[in-house]
Amino acid sequence: MALDPLSTTFSALADPTRRAILSKLTLGQASVTELAEPFEMTMPAITKHLKVLERAGLIERGKEAQWRPCRLRAEPLREIEDWVEHYRTFWEQSLDRLGAYLKTVTAKKNSKEKKHSRMKHFQSD
Amino acid sequence: MALDPLSTTFSALADPTRRAILSKLTLGQASVTELAEPFEMTMPAITKHLKVLERAGLIERGKEAQWRPCRLRAEPLREIEDWVEHYRTFWEQSLDRLGAYLKTVTAKKNSKEKKHSRMKHFQSD
Repeated sequence: MALDPLSTTFSALADPTRRAILSKLTLGQASVTELAEPFEMTMPAITKHLKVLERAGLIERGKEAQWRPCRLRAEPLREIEDWVEHYRTFWEQSLDRLGAYLKTVTAKKNSKEKKHSRMKHFQSD
Repeated sequence: MALDPLSTTFSALADPTRRAILSKLTLGQASVTELAEPFEMTMPAITKHLKVLERAGLIERGKEAQWRPCRLRAEPLREIEDWVEHYRTFWEQSLDRLGAYLKTVTAKKNSKEKKHSRMKHFQSD
């Protein structure tokens, strides 16, 4: 079944090796051999990952017959950011709630400690 | 094979129905029946999608035995945004390049049109 473009991008990113390949390509173009090096993977395995990234439009391969370097194409990631931005309010709300909760817990803890220290002071008098 | 948390989130988002469910939950909590309604899907199919979202920590189910409402949990999406932000420079660069290219094309087109209009003016003299 053909995926819609956003699903294709999300699916391509759902793998740590593919994300590491993209990360490496932020430093500049690289050959397949150079990309394969850090992963201790067979060439067919790396080639399969590159095909997934290429189909998602996240990399492009050079036309040079000898080494066909891979380059990063970040445009599809802008779509991901557009999509995720709609949810910012929601994770910020829950961070606010967590902040408020921690404030209450700390306040309670401080008030208990004060009480305890007053009692110790009272006992040592 | 167990996926790392980021891969689990990306994988859960790689489906238009699951993204639509999350979008619907931004309006408030909803029962499984309410979520199933717009998709013309069987209950087992919807339940399967909800399980994927729940495993990814993107929704939580209420404890009420009767209707167990689903709620959005947006926190894992913050991780996605953190990840994608590292690539912003790259898609902005390519937008800049596109902008520069369009500027050149428009400038060439304008200069051609001017030349053409000067020639017409000359011919009509």
